[in-house]
Amino acid sequence: MDLHILDHRLRVTSISKNGLANFTHSLIKLIFLRNRTRCKFFSLTETPENYTVVLDEEGFKELQPSEHLQVESSIWLPLNVVSNGNASSSSQAVGVTKIAKSVIAPLAQQHVSVFMLSTYQTDFILVKEKDLSVVISTLEEEFNIYKEVKGDCVPVHGQDVSNGLQKNGKEAIQPTVHPVLIPKNHFCVMSLDPDTLPSIATTLMDVLFYSTSPKEDMQSSPSQDLDCIKFFSFSLIDGYISLVMDTEAQRKFPADLLFTSSSGELWRMVRIGGQPLGFDECGIVAQISQPLADSDISAYYISTFSFDHALVPEEDIVSVADMLHHQRNEPANS
Amino acid sequence: MDLHILDHRLRVTSISKNGLANFTHSLIKLIFLRNRTRCKFFSLTETPENYTVVLDEEGFKELQPSEHLQVESSIWLPLNVVSNGNASSSSQAVGVTKIAKSVIAPLAQQHVSVFMLSTYQTDFILVKEKDLSVVISTLEEEFNIYKEVKGDCVPVHGQDVSNGLQKNGKEAIQPTVHPVLIPKNHFCVMSLDPDTLPSIATTLMDVLFYSTSPKEDMQSSPSQDLDCIKFFSFSLIDGYISLVMDTEAQRKFPADLLFTSSSGELWRMVRIGGQPLGFDECGIVAQISQPLADSDISAYYISTFSFDHALVPEEDIVSVADMLHHQRNEPANS
Repeated sequence: MDLHILDHRLRVTSISKNGLANFTHSLIKLIFLRNRTRCKFFSLTETPENYTVVLDEEGFKELQPSEHLQVESSIWLPLNVVSNGNASSSSQAVGVTKIAKSVIAPLAQQHVSVFMLSTYQTDFILVKEKDLSVVISTLEEEFNIYKEVKGDCVPVHGQDVSNGLQKNGKEAIQPTVHPVLIPKNHFCVMSLDPDTLPSIATTLMDVLFYSTSPKEDMQSSPSQDLDCIKFFSFSLIDGYISLVMDTEAQRKFPADLLFTSSSGELWRMVRIGGQPLGFDECGIVAQISQPLADSDISAYYISTFSFDHALVPEEDIVSVADMLHHQRNEPANS
Repeated sequence: MDLHILDHRLRVTSISKNGLANFTHSLIKLIFLRNRTRCKFFSLTETPENYTVVLDEEGFKELQPSEHLQVESSIWLPLNVVSNGNASSSSQAVGVTKIAKSVIAPLAQQHVSVFMLSTYQTDFILVKEKDLSVVISTLEEEFNIYKEVKGDCVPVHGQDVSNGLQKNGKEAIQPTVHPVLIPKNHFCVMSLDPDTLPSIATTLMDVLFYSTSPKEDMQSSPSQDLDCIKFFSFSLIDGYISLVMDTEAQRKFPADLLFTSSSGELWRMVRIGGQPLGFDECGIVAQISQPLADSDISAYYISTFSFDHALVPEEDIVSVADMLHHQRNEPANS
């Protein structure tokens, strides 16, 4: 298999809930007005805590410094596994499960922290630029590694990296086992032809920027179940759109424009972390994705500024919950 | 003819050019998300100086106080002339010309300042609430006056007004003759079915909120002629949409959604005022509309926070320019 280091230099940022109005002008430009910006990698995820915005340096220029904007200090590079026909695995699972053993586990062992961003189209593994030499030396046994440079793919080897081989070499310590939460919403992972994005602009703006303000016609707004979680993710990466939303949000969109896989499956969420996870700890993704891979259960995985989120098929949530509670040495009681 | 005092209490505000980003969140809600707001009267006009926003008190609540927001201190009430079949005038002219002699001139003589807002559908004459008794006593000879109260029309007479008859009674002094400017753009006055507003949302946002930021694909952005003026007006009043834009902006919109009168005529602008006009001077609208009425030339008239703007038919601009220059005792030289 091939591993591509994509030609984007990314920033991971967070906008506070009550600071969103200050960034509406910038975000609408990044989402809807492609000919006004050079940004090619943009992702916005609303969680109960904040809005996580991951974007390339061109897009980052649009965000004005503010007390409402937190910026993680690293430059992050997105990696992407491209299966080239000779898939070494017979797994039918999709998403982060497919790369759990080949990418996620080895990086965790080398103490490389990753920020995962699954989309409808693919799974981006974001690593810090300063860890790149470790990443390459760790993964080059399993993968042919290419760096994308202005549209061309250039093969990369450990010795090409200026800093040389710098395996962290620390003992693999047992990572913290984080608490998990399983909200009751059902999610769908969808896409949209970018040319039809204007058709859903007002609905998307309503959901993204005004969902917390009260509606004047109250009838159309059933109160959110307390056991449900606010989670909405939009990404526009290299011209591809991906949306993750729960079924309540989905009903607001015209049914004929958003599409999902033919099986049209629904997903349940496992939210990882009791306290904000930070960006230095390693092995969080591995902790969840390894057992999923052992059971061949598909999963999307979306990291945000404060917490991580895995999405697993609706029909697997009971066994996943059992497994996670077992992992935490507690009796399953979902 | 009938004169209706509409059931809106309006504020006249101005957002500075570089403060627009701070108000994008509020303005998008007011323009596109009708079920999130109780605002029924909203008008936004971009001029080279600023953005004039006229809106009712429900809408005004959405605007956060800021150094970028100027608010005129008065409450303004919109008046509307409704011809009830027995039109007393044989004029074919439309817009402010039709009400020049019956409304504008008498109010000017009584030193009542007016703020005009012509739309595709009608002409709103805004007067200060404190002037209402003078307005009623001045106009009740010519009109049956009704006050709209929660959908009902209640007849109003001078003696009903609590303050009683308070004609200003000052000598009608000769008003200042303001300089005028005639930019070269051609304008159109258009409307749109409110249900199709979402279809033009991205284009409208692009024109309203991002027209000053550079486009990345430069080819599609010919540099604006220096003799042209930036002027774009959008209003959403009691469910009716009106748009005034020049032909360059018009080309950005899908041709099949915006509609104009069957004659599809183009309009030229007369911009009134060398220095910002303020809100206390009287007779400015009368100064322009009287001679237009004498010549039976149609005109839309849009006041903004700093200047006034009359739109006259393209084919009449030469005679209007002559007339205005004559009024100013200068030789015509347009």
